[in-house]
Amino acid sequence: MKDTIFLISVISALAFALPDVAPAQLAPPKVVLVIHGGAGSITPENTPESRQQEVTRKLEEALIAGYHVLDEGGTSLDAVVAAVVIMEDSPLFNAGRGAVLTSAGTIELDASIMDGASRNAGGVAAVKRVKSPIALARAVMEQTDHVLLAGEGAEAFAREIGMEMVANEYFRTDRRVQQFESKKASLNGDTGDARSLQSVRESGYYGTVGAAALDSEGNLAAATSTGGLSFKKWGRVGDSPIIGAGTYADNETCAISATGTGEYFIRGVLSFRISALMLHAGLSLEDAASSVIHGTLSEMGGDGGVIGLDRHGNVTMTFNTDGMYRGYVDAAGNTHVAMFGK
Amino acid sequence: MKDTIFLISVISALAFALPDVAPAQLAPPKVVLVIHGGAGSITPENTPESRQQEVTRKLEEALIAGYHVLDEGGTSLDAVVAAVVIMEDSPLFNAGRGAVLTSAGTIELDASIMDGASRNAGGVAAVKRVKSPIALARAVMEQTDHVLLAGEGAEAFAREIGMEMVANEYFRTDRRVQQFESKKASLNGDTGDARSLQSVRESGYYGTVGAAALDSEGNLAAATSTGGLSFKKWGRVGDSPIIGAGTYADNETCAISATGTGEYFIRGVLSFRISALMLHAGLSLEDAASSVIHGTLSEMGGDGGVIGLDRHGNVTMTFNTDGMYRGYVDAAGNTHVAMFGK
Repeated sequence: MKDTIFLISVISALAFALPDVAPAQLAPPKVVLVIHGGAGSITPENTPESRQQEVTRKLEEALIAGYHVLDEGGTSLDAVVAAVVIMEDSPLFNAGRGAVLTSAGTIELDASIMDGASRNAGGVAAVKRVKSPIALARAVMEQTDHVLLAGEGAEAFAREIGMEMVANEYFRTDRRVQQFESKKASLNGDTGDARSLQSVRESGYYGTVGAAALDSEGNLAAATSTGGLSFKKWGRVGDSPIIGAGTYADNETCAISATGTGEYFIRGVLSFRISALMLHAGLSLEDAASSVIHGTLSEMGGDGGVIGLDRHGNVTMTFNTDGMYRGYVDAAGNTHVAMFGK
Repeated sequence: MKDTIFLISVISALAFALPDVAPAQLAPPKVVLVIHGGAGSITPENTPESRQQEVTRKLEEALIAGYHVLDEGGTSLDAVVAAVVIMEDSPLFNAGRGAVLTSAGTIELDASIMDGASRNAGGVAAVKRVKSPIALARAVMEQTDHVLLAGEGAEAFAREIGMEMVANEYFRTDRRVQQFESKKASLNGDTGDARSLQSVRESGYYGTVGAAALDSEGNLAAATSTGGLSFKKWGRVGDSPIIGAGTYADNETCAISATGTGEYFIRGVLSFRISALMLHAGLSLEDAASSVIHGTLSEMGGDGGVIGLDRHGNVTMTFNTDGMYRGYVDAAGNTHVAMFGK
């Protein structure tokens, strides 16, 4: 951070010396919200034009929803929830409606959220009937003493506080049922083995969604929501509901949401690791994210990416896969969406 | 670490100048295994002599079991499991047999383990019928691609690989049933509210068990097992099955197992935070643990402690509560057990 401040000072000095340099080139506009819709084998070759357009429109819709919250003076928590709910409700991503099926043919959803101001957090794992897992994660954070609720118990809490419940079929889409049937047929009636991560990695798309935001009070927040691994079994829980792994936020450093082979994000504590590199090693957000994704994650053999914001509105969207559905909106309301590699 | 090495150099130099200083005083013997049986309001006043003796004997038994594994050339993973299984099987601690009851009157167990050499890890949450949750956590690490399995799914995996299963009643003890009935009566038929953490904190004892070990190959491992919060509801999951929160191990830095108000350990990612302080801020294990427990945890308002080992055999047993059941054994087989504050 000191380096950045120093650089800004130098550039400002140059700007006085060279008054014809436009101020817009000196300091990039502060980013207020950044989102992802999953990383993986996302290339121009395997992404039809029609899907490119649908995904782009939906990411823009999520960015604008979050931006409006912030522009009206709302909190970063409100903004990340507003953005994530739109992606949960869309069948385009592996979260909420349109999530992948488990080996039992059901849909089990995970989510978590963290408030950078208080470092309070909430998460839910393996919920089947709560329309918005991220809204439930927020309720866990705000209305209980707990951080993580799982399974039937989490749903009992959701009913008790009057959250919107749906049948598990609500989340089911034809596309995911076809993927499930095709996977099942390929296994000849087996339900997959203990090394099922490999087959998911071959399919190459981790469709978790997430957001990080910075509000006018300078507070950061991050949120993540997912259907987890396709054809998962044995009550597998990934990184998305785990604070420090799939989600982390701390006003002192950054807000992060991750997507990828969740097991590696848990083992490497990768979201929090970015924060720790900023806090203790003095790295910028971009350098810390790059070190964790291209260094730690890649060295461990994992795939995926993160989006993140620091308290100055610097943004990162870093991944070691072919692409990541991603976008950000700046304080002026300009949106920027991308999906393929740089 | 640099400070320590420098200090050792200075002391070594003094030793040459003063040859009558016994070498044993220069470097404390390397610790190979450290364990805890929970932290909390453990004082001479509220701990009857008979319980002091029972706990001391059981901690020594766990230390010696782990020591034998290491002394015979076994791995740190084998040693932490050997030590933790003895505490799981004992009704004295809140893990395995003798675990606390949930608000539904059942027992739901969590555990996790991490291998510092590979940074591979395994955890289980809310299992009810697996005799040794730590053995199941190890099987998750070694026999699946996953890190965390929860609930019925985790038990289906346990049955599939032939782990020893028991009725939930196996874990139940008269002492815990009495605590449950008394709590239930005080609530007048209610099942507790969303702020249930407070009532547990008033009871003041977090009886999670855990171990960290260093083997002859220089590999670290850590393991943690618990019954979680007394009278917990809604599928609450604490820090014990969460890598980075309740358990962490990395040969580069340290092996840690935590006990306390688990929600704070999750939010602060406290086990991994100790490792990050060593790696990026150059702190010793003892200074990093002290910073995290007396700094981060206390500032957040949480209670608890950690035990840990670094790769040089330096040990920490740090807590911000009145006491912590704890002990370590050194390379010569000498055990040291304590429970009250320093």
